[in-house]
Amino acid sequence: MKLMAVTDDQRSVCELAFTIIGIKDQIDMVQIREKTKTAQEIITLIQYLEDGGVRKEKIILNDRLDIALLMNIPTVHLPEKGLTIKMVKQHFPHIKVGRSVHSFEGALNAERDGADYVLYGHCFETNSKLRKKPNGMKPIIEMKEHLKIPVYAIGGITLNKIHALQKVNVDGIAVMSGIFSAENPYFSTKQYFEAIKYD
Amino acid sequence: MKLMAVTDDQRSVCELAFTIIGIKDQIDMVQIREKTKTAQEIITLIQYLEDGGVRKEKIILNDRLDIALLMNIPTVHLPEKGLTIKMVKQHFPHIKVGRSVHSFEGALNAERDGADYVLYGHCFETNSKLRKKPNGMKPIIEMKEHLKIPVYAIGGITLNKIHALQKVNVDGIAVMSGIFSAENPYFSTKQYFEAIKYD
Repeated sequence: MKLMAVTDDQRSVCELAFTIIGIKDQIDMVQIREKTKTAQEIITLIQYLEDGGVRKEKIILNDRLDIALLMNIPTVHLPEKGLTIKMVKQHFPHIKVGRSVHSFEGALNAERDGADYVLYGHCFETNSKLRKKPNGMKPIIEMKEHLKIPVYAIGGITLNKIHALQKVNVDGIAVMSGIFSAENPYFSTKQYFEAIKYD
Repeated sequence: MKLMAVTDDQRSVCELAFTIIGIKDQIDMVQIREKTKTAQEIITLIQYLEDGGVRKEKIILNDRLDIALLMNIPTVHLPEKGLTIKMVKQHFPHIKVGRSVHSFEGALNAERDGADYVLYGHCFETNSKLRKKPNGMKPIIEMKEHLKIPVYAIGGITLNKIHALQKVNVDGIAVMSGIFSAENPYFSTKQYFEAIKYD
């Protein structure tokens, strides 16, 4: 099971870079999801990460395909109202594309359109989606039965949820507040890393 | 003297498309500057514009190089904190690049970096930059003396300013609120169009 850290757009470029560099060896990927930052800030962040030894292969850029192309970042994550998978794949087939989905049908469509992975959510109750009912784990079972591409789960994934997620064979978990809102992101990431490894 | 309409991020995709289609024959370019809209909304807007007969050559996309690449829009406008001209030109030399500048030095740098035009502002007092002192027309004289690329002016350009701007040989004017906040954008654009033509 892989571990993807998803940034929460709450820190300065400098703070965020330090945090990611600090957890880089415990995570498989970091999704840069900084919707209020300018293109220049995101470019600076990526430069800091590279200087800090974070490999480009570990970086996933949310929404901004242009910055991915200019900085040679191999993977973009397309939000639900973002660019379409088909357009991206048609113009830039070398770019890996992930897609947020909220149902089994959504995941099927994403795979058919050429997505390289899906990020399914939100699984459990989470502070970042307070008013929305979670979609639960059931769709993951269907996805794992019918999809060839990896399925990641997101939304309220605390340490005690990991065992159940492993049982439905999810390929990875994505964690935002569990890491970036934690009192100690390094310690918290290490706990996720150990839980995944030894569960 | 050319006329660039700059959108103000205040209308729905549908309303905005209708307005632009209505003024398309009176303007030389429209800069799509819709910072709060999603990538999907901007893509929809561009599709509406094309369906409405707005040629791609008239469209300039603010900030979103990725959408420009996917939709074959030839020109992007880079905000001050956006992608760098050099990066864009290095990876996509076929893309035309405009740059916002606020001084003669800024314009010189932009031309040296490969910009295809500069958009200088803000010239006069304007509601969209209420607290900032305008930079005046003087730098335009220097730019027109030393730069080869076209210089566009923006910021508080009302009809009565056009004569003075023509005297300093500016290549074009960019108008946001004068068009999109006007009671009748079609009528207002026609007035700009006539003023430029016959002044």
